[in-house]
Formats: sequence, structure tokens, C-alpha cells
Amino acid sequence: MAVIAPSARVRPSVYYNATLKEGVASFTTYNQMLMPTGYGDPEGEYWRLINGVSQWDVAVERQVELLGPDAGTLAQILSPRDLSRCKVGQGKYVAMCNHDGVLINDPILLKLADDRYWLSIADSNILFWARAVAAERGLNVQVSEPDVSPMALQGPKAEDVVAHLFGDWVRDLKYFWFQETTLRGIPVAVARSGWSKQGGFELYLMDGSRGEELWNIVREAGQAWGIGPGNPNPSERVESGLLSYGGDTDDVTNPYEVRLGGFVDLDVPDDVIGIQALRDIKARGAVRQQLGVILDGDSALVPEPGWNEITCEGRKMGHLTNCSWSWRMKKNIGFALISSTCGPGDRVQVMRADGPQNGVLVDFPFL
Amino acid sequence: MAVIAPSARVRPSVYYNATLKEGVASFTTYNQMLMPTGYGDPEGEYWRLINGVSQWDVAVERQVELLGPDAGTLAQILSPRDLSRCKVGQGKYVAMCNHDGVLINDPILLKLADDRYWLSIADSNILFWARAVAAERGLNVQVSEPDVSPMALQGPKAEDVVAHLFGDWVRDLKYFWFQETTLRGIPVAVARSGWSKQGGFELYLMDGSRGEELWNIVREAGQAWGIGPGNPNPSERVESGLLSYGGDTDDVTNPYEVRLGGFVDLDVPDDVIGIQALRDIKARGAVRQQLGVILDGDSALVPEPGWNEITCEGRKMGHLTNCSWSWRMKKNIGFALISSTCGPGDRVQVMRADGPQNGVLVDFPFL
Repeated sequence: MAVIAPSARVRPSVYYNATLKEGVASFTTYNQMLMPTGYGDPEGEYWRLINGVSQWDVAVERQVELLGPDAGTLAQILSPRDLSRCKVGQGKYVAMCNHDGVLINDPILLKLADDRYWLSIADSNILFWARAVAAERGLNVQVSEPDVSPMALQGPKAEDVVAHLFGDWVRDLKYFWFQETTLRGIPVAVARSGWSKQGGFELYLMDGSRGEELWNIVREAGQAWGIGPGNPNPSERVESGLLSYGGDTDDVTNPYEVRLGGFVDLDVPDDVIGIQALRDIKARGAVRQQLGVILDGDSALVPEPGWNEITCEGRKMGHLTNCSWSWRMKKNIGFALISSTCGPGDRVQVMRADGPQNGVLVDFPFL
Repeated sequence: MAVIAPSARVRPSVYYNATLKEGVASFTTYNQMLMPTGYGDPEGEYWRLINGVSQWDVAVERQVELLGPDAGTLAQILSPRDLSRCKVGQGKYVAMCNHDGVLINDPILLKLADDRYWLSIADSNILFWARAVAAERGLNVQVSEPDVSPMALQGPKAEDVVAHLFGDWVRDLKYFWFQETTLRGIPVAVARSGWSKQGGFELYLMDGSRGEELWNIVREAGQAWGIGPGNPNPSERVESGLLSYGGDTDDVTNPYEVRLGGFVDLDVPDDVIGIQALRDIKARGAVRQQLGVILDGDSALVPEPGWNEITCEGRKMGHLTNCSWSWRMKKNIGFALISSTCGPGDRVQVMRADGPQNGVLVDFPFL
């Protein structure tokens, strides 16, 4: 633990001042910006997400905008998923790969118009990637980072808050679909999405000068439902089996290894980046897989940075890529990126810095 | 200021434990890793760099390795600087640009062999960029991030320490040249380089498991010269006019705007990325330039994140991209990225969050 301050290279979010007033206690960096990771009450923040409604600064989910006649062409080239039936107002989760079929991001693609797309990205530089590809292929498309800053409302009571703010039409939004609108003159896109399995919405603020204003409007509206601050929750996301790009993946991870094979359409055109490699990987079969791990013992372990080696009967079989205390299971749980020769039920040993821990492999989701 | 902890996505350096033992007080993130930014004694650390020798964890300077028959071809495609006479063992500072001539990094290129190069990068994802270009152009080259972690020794006494460790041959190394060697069996490349103007070396450690060991060997050897911990120094680098990519540049900055025109060779082949755009920019003339700013007043200002607007006679002319207290000048100084219509001697006003500050534009370097 050490202190960090925002700078020109490590930007604060448009909600930064609002989160300081909420008492933010810690940050991580993500897409070269500061993101809150806690407000001082881990267990209270967890149960608020599970039972109520939680307000998250996720402005670090930057948008890479593709704009112009070839925007749709570029979107498809970047996405090994068939986008041909994607409608305006629809979002799709994309397992974005490089030419070797290695995962380089897992954004939500949002189609705002036939010539305008956003890639709402995880933690890697897709702005440079998309620009390189667009320029090398001579496409007529502008690639930029627009002034867009998502805020998430997650939890079973999020829908009531969002409906109270925007109207009951939000209740009819399908998962990953969105609509552009305004809230007291503030331009936002309202999407049913968010990095939890507790339900909820993301508000894509389209005017960074109004971040604190939007935060406070939502905060005020949510009082009746007990709203409070939170952030992508390390415990809930592990319980729910949600992938963290860069956290649970390495420089050779392909979609089939991390349960994203269902988002790859092998019959997309040959000019889609990585599709030939993905066909080969699919034909050969992935050598690693992602499984859950439940560790023995009933007390929370101290978090350790990075990955821990996993052995099975003394043999190195893979890594534990995260580990979190589950308040619902009362167990330490995590993800294994592990040899495809292993399977649910196998006993394993996790080589933690504070000593080896025994556990068992399980299928997803935990809950 | 808030707390941050290392994670799988925000990696610690191989010198992390060593810097904790040295009493590191704060970090920034850089290339998705933690980098020390202070050890609790800003003024003492500054004078140690100016008058003695300072030991820096700069493992965040990641290497992008180009390996294979087309490594040299790719290096030149990525670099708008003529590399045709670059020798094995030589390094060159590169103003790397995208297809629009916009600066995307300013690495040191190191030629390790005819088929092996490193790009020792500033804070942006050149691994993805180089892979995209290599694959799109069908080049026979592997692009990877090797296990290499630079440590810097900077200051007027650095050469004595490095010569004591490696031998007097290091005194003959020319600026940016390097040599591969070992130190008690630890593989390193010794380069005369570093992000200060006080002289010194960088040791490119090539075995991450030996980070703390190397740190301690250097620390021990440096005792006779009063070595102590430090980091890229915000005051010294501003005094010396050193550019921070991402700190002093934005998403449209070209090399001519930030004093890097001398590193662009307009007669490189047409397949070099950005060269056509750079020829056009050079012909038209850059609309912005980088100048120094000396603020009025004799007491240190509180750092503010991000850029501050600069006005001249009430008109918006550009931005102050950094601001630091100079212990040698006893002034607050910074860099202006400002209209080419302004010039040294012009009086300006800097719109800081804590109120406007008057100052004057000056040529580089300050000292």
C-alpha cells in the first residue's frame, strides 16, 4: 500500500471530486485513470450491491469511437463476432483478439448509428490498436476517444432508481441495449449493463463538465432506495465468474481458455483480425481452461498481488489469477487458469506467498 | 492523494520489495506498473541527484523486443528517424508517431543485433501498436515484452559507482550506447542514459528474479559515494527541459511542437509510419510550440493535476503542461504548449485552480 496522486498522465475521473466527498479510501489505475476501489467498508459495500443499489465511478471504461463511412467495417474487422445483425441501440460483448487469436480486450461494442460505434473498453489501449488497423487498411473512419464517462448503478434496486430518474421505459431495455437521452439537460446514454450479476444500468455521461452534477442527482434520487457508493466488487465479480481482462488473462490467453468461445463466430469474413488463428485454436482445442477454485478454510486470506502457481499432486498445472473472500459462501474463492487436463472436483494446492493452501476445482458460477 | 496497491493489472516492479525497504512514500503508475515517485525527502532527493548519485527503480520503462529477419525493417517503419547507420550496441532516441504524424511515444531504440531491437518505451502501449503494424504488413518478426527491468543510476557520481561495479570501460561508453555483460552472474546491459541531465547510466536487468539482489549490490557499492534512493525527479527534469510523453503531450501533439523535430528525418522511406504527415506539418509549420514558463513569486506552489490554461493579454494561447518548484532557481517553473505566435519574453497568466498566476515565457533549458 502506498499513496498515489492524479497527474496529467494518471487522470482523475469526472466524478473524482464526488468520490472524494463520498470518502473514497483507495484507488487502482485503469486505462491510465484513477478508479475507486473502496470506501472503507468492504462488507457493507458488498451487501449494498447484493441487496440494494450501489453507485460506481467507472469513467475508466473509456470509449473508442469509430466514426465515418467505414466505421461498421472497422468494427467487424476488430471483432471476431458476427455484427451483421447488430441494431442501432444495441450493445454486444466482444472478445477482441490480435492476429494470433490472443485476447487484447473484452469491450462492449455499442452501435450508435450505422456510421458510429463505441468500444467501451477494458484495461488496454484499443485507441492505438484501432488507429493502426484503420490506417494500415486505408479505411475511411475517424478513431477517437470522445468525452464519455460511464457511471454504473448496480444491484437489485438499481432499476427502480433509474426508472425514477428516466421513466419506466428503462424497464423494457434489453441486456446491453441502450438509449440516448438527457437528464435535466445532461446528455447521457442509458444502458442495461454493468460489471456485476446483480442487475443494473450504466449511464454514459456525454459532458465531462457535468460529472459531479450527475453524480449528485443520482445520489439524491437513490436515497429512498438506500443508495451508496461502491465500485466493481472483487468479491461479487469472482462469485459471479466475471472475467477481468489483464487480471485473469496473460499475453497468450485466447477466448476459448477463458469461457469466451461463445462470443467467437468462426464464419465471419477472413479479414477479421485473428479469425484464422481462432479457427486453428478451436480445431486443435485449447490447452488451458478457466475453472473456479474454492480454498479450504473459513477465514479471509490477505490479498496477494499477481498470480499464484497451482499444483496438482505436486505438478505445476496453472495459476490462480484472483482470490477473494466470499461473504455469501464464507470461503476464499478464485479463478484458475489451468491445464485442460484438470477438471472440477480435482484437489489442488495454491502456492501463496504466505504458504500453500489446499482447495478444489469447481465449475462456474460459484453462486 | 489516496492509497493504491499492486495487483495483477497494476504490477509491482522487480525492485518493489527493495524500494519498500528504502522507505518509498508514493507511487505513480506507468505502463500499468507501479513506479516510486518519492521517498519522503523531496529536497534531499533533489540535491542527491544534483550533487551525488541517486538509485532509481525505472523498471516501468518496458522493452518492446523486435526479433527476427524483419526486425530492422519494422524498427525503421515505426521510427521517423534514419536508422540505416545505427550500429549494434547503439541506442537512438525516437519520436515515434502514428499515421497522422502524432507522437505516440518517445522510446530509446537499442540495437542488440541485426535481427534484435528493443524499444525502451515511455508510458503508452507500443507492444500492441508494433504487433498490429507487423501483422498488417506481413513482416517476419516476433514482437514481445522480454524480462528486462531497467534501474537508473543518475548524478555526477554515478559514473564512479558504475565503473567500480563493472570496470573502467564504462567511462568510454558514448551517450545512449550500451554493452551486455554480467555482474556476479546477473545478466545486465549497461547503457549511458537516463531521464535526467545530471549524467549517469541505466542497468537493464535481464533476469527479474534477481531484482532485489541487483538493487542491494548497487546500493552497497554506492555507499562510498553517498548513494541513496530517488526517482525521475519532477524538479530536475523540468529545469533540464526533458519531455514527458503523455504528461506534456496530448492526442494531437506532433514532434515539431515539442522540440523533437531534430529527431525526424524527412528523407526516410515512404513506408515509415507518419512520414508523409510529418513532411506536410514541417512544410506548413507547427501551430504550437513548447517554451519554458517562469512564474512570479518565490514560494513553492501546490502541485495540481493536469494542464492549466495559459492566457496572454486575456486571450487563450495554450496550456501549462507541468509545474515544479526549482530548488536551484527558487522559482516555480513549467512547460508551456502554446501558440507559435507567442515568444520568449511574453508575459502570460496561468489559470490555476488556486487562482491565476503571472509569469514569463522563456527558452529552454532553464539551467
